[in-house]
Amino acid sequence: MPDSYNRSGGSPPKAKMIIVEPTYEGDFVANGALELECGRRLICPTLHYAVYGRLNAARDNAVLVCHALSGSALVGAWWPEIFAPGAVLSLERDFVICINMLGSCYGSTGPSSVNPETGAAYGPEFPLIDVRDNVRAQAQLLDSLGVRHLRLVLGASLGGMQALEWTILYPARMSRALVIGVSPLSAMGLALNHLQRQAIVHDPEWAQGRYLPQRPPRRGLSLARQIGMISYKSTPLFEERFGRKPDRSGEDPWAVNGNGEGLIGGRFDIAGYLDHQGQKFIERFDANAYLALLRTMDTWDPRRGYNSPEEAYSRIRAKLSFIGISTDWLFPAADVRRFAEAVRQAGAQAEYREMVSDHGHDAFLAEQVELVQLLQ
Amino acid sequence: MPDSYNRSGGSPPKAKMIIVEPTYEGDFVANGALELECGRRLICPTLHYAVYGRLNAARDNAVLVCHALSGSALVGAWWPEIFAPGAVLSLERDFVICINMLGSCYGSTGPSSVNPETGAAYGPEFPLIDVRDNVRAQAQLLDSLGVRHLRLVLGASLGGMQALEWTILYPARMSRALVIGVSPLSAMGLALNHLQRQAIVHDPEWAQGRYLPQRPPRRGLSLARQIGMISYKSTPLFEERFGRKPDRSGEDPWAVNGNGEGLIGGRFDIAGYLDHQGQKFIERFDANAYLALLRTMDTWDPRRGYNSPEEAYSRIRAKLSFIGISTDWLFPAADVRRFAEAVRQAGAQAEYREMVSDHGHDAFLAEQVELVQLLQ
Repeated sequence: MPDSYNRSGGSPPKAKMIIVEPTYEGDFVANGALELECGRRLICPTLHYAVYGRLNAARDNAVLVCHALSGSALVGAWWPEIFAPGAVLSLERDFVICINMLGSCYGSTGPSSVNPETGAAYGPEFPLIDVRDNVRAQAQLLDSLGVRHLRLVLGASLGGMQALEWTILYPARMSRALVIGVSPLSAMGLALNHLQRQAIVHDPEWAQGRYLPQRPPRRGLSLARQIGMISYKSTPLFEERFGRKPDRSGEDPWAVNGNGEGLIGGRFDIAGYLDHQGQKFIERFDANAYLALLRTMDTWDPRRGYNSPEEAYSRIRAKLSFIGISTDWLFPAADVRRFAEAVRQAGAQAEYREMVSDHGHDAFLAEQVELVQLLQ
Repeated sequence: MPDSYNRSGGSPPKAKMIIVEPTYEGDFVANGALELECGRRLICPTLHYAVYGRLNAARDNAVLVCHALSGSALVGAWWPEIFAPGAVLSLERDFVICINMLGSCYGSTGPSSVNPETGAAYGPEFPLIDVRDNVRAQAQLLDSLGVRHLRLVLGASLGGMQALEWTILYPARMSRALVIGVSPLSAMGLALNHLQRQAIVHDPEWAQGRYLPQRPPRRGLSLARQIGMISYKSTPLFEERFGRKPDRSGEDPWAVNGNGEGLIGGRFDIAGYLDHQGQKFIERFDANAYLALLRTMDTWDPRRGYNSPEEAYSRIRAKLSFIGISTDWLFPAADVRRFAEAVRQAGAQAEYREMVSDHGHDAFLAEQVELVQLLQ
């Protein structure tokens, strides 16, 4: 098995790796029940969170970073370049908070958590969690930290959904918001999530969501991740990195090795890459958590429950910046631009900028230095 | 279950449906073994074919239509508009031949056929079939019909691969060739095929390719088809037809119906559409045949075995027309244009035209009238 540097497609390693460690990492347990948008409730849910830097005396230096589908509270680990000197955040200046989403598997209450009402893991009975439910729970956590006001709330992808929802639900609680690579999921995005969901629930190991931790639906989750990967990357990036090359492990798509080669055969390099990404993912993520977060992403619509989009967006008081990514086909740049325009037409302050990158949706992680440059 | 007219997304039915019946439909059995590109052989393979119209006395009115991944020899059924008055083909003027591909499940030798060497179905031992193997077998069939020369050979997608390969392997046997929506599969195309392959082989019902006809891997084949569908269609088409609407059967993505709604829940309309397409497909297609044809598509490279692309393309004598489709992301129009350019630079006569359509790759089937207009 080639190492993951090679599998990442040959990018040179960064000359200097920034290490950003949290000041504190721990759990917040909400007091009482969180009433959910779906009508159900979570009893005393836990939010796992990390903070970086310290809240100043004026309490005006807090920043909330919201993570994407497979992220965690450790923003310093997955988005280190935004802490680089002169970049978006400063460990000296800012008090940065990042909170694991409800439904995830990185410490906050999710499908594998014990339901206090039954004493057993939620499993498939874990309720539908809306982005708004996350934002309301996060607000309670910020209250507990003494943070009433955010200098900035930001996020990309599912994280951008949370950042935008913050500006609508709690318009007085932040000065600025940064929303990257996101708009309400389009029909193509809903289609991609539908495919990923099927990949998991068709795996017999999924067992209607009641699989044992030691026997998860590995093949289903791997395929789901691989379907996700093609939507996070771009056609030009894949072409440049993999083209039609045979798999780097030595498999030959044209080889005659015996039985099965006519139907399956040796892999091309892109297939080896996708398999590797799937394998890495099943070692770190839970299938039911993935299903829960797909639903959170699917159902997010900031206009839902308002009489009009204008009614929702006119609540916003923050200065908003939207970033579209030129080769993003999961959240096309044109959709992000239209989203920014709709927010602006409702009277909010919203600018739109476009990140030119071959990396597709993933550019916010894969090209952090370039993202930081655009934000300056 | 809504009817398939509704599920097709609301296009009005065509005012007049053209019915094009074949003059003859039958089998050709090759004499002896077909030596395959992979080094193996097929003993006396059968080609199922259909002809439309009659070969004239001068034998100069033959046209070969090559079908795509899930097509059959009955071109009059799946591409009727190219037979419309004044369109590409004429039942009065032309002798049109269409041949089911080796590996398919519509009458030609494929994985469910009996292997004469073992007396049992090939199943997973069906060999890798190259596009060239198909073209060589098709040439034998044309010989048997007395057709030495083709006025035109044409095809779209996998059919276009065959049409182009014809112009290289048998340069003296045709006057013109029409290659629609195709180029050697890009890394993204190889990725999509890899995902579809996994969907099938991960289904426990696949049984290493030895499933019984009455117990095929339905869920895997359905998911494979759905993954294919998103690559055949386009983001703008899905957005226009489905947007974020809940499923038309009445399911509600936000509903709380009891267990499982947090992880799976009610479908959006696009999900209902994809499920319906998957269901329709498993009623008409064989999983091993699908795997075989994915491999034929994956491995096609007209440059393979030549010292240079120029050496391959300079063999071409036919007047070639390439058609790219503006919203095709499986075979991007830019790739088709570059392909045409490479063929032209090798000295062949090749023009490029672009079909402007919101239908993506599928436009060659979904917008036949518009395609015919472009070809005139």
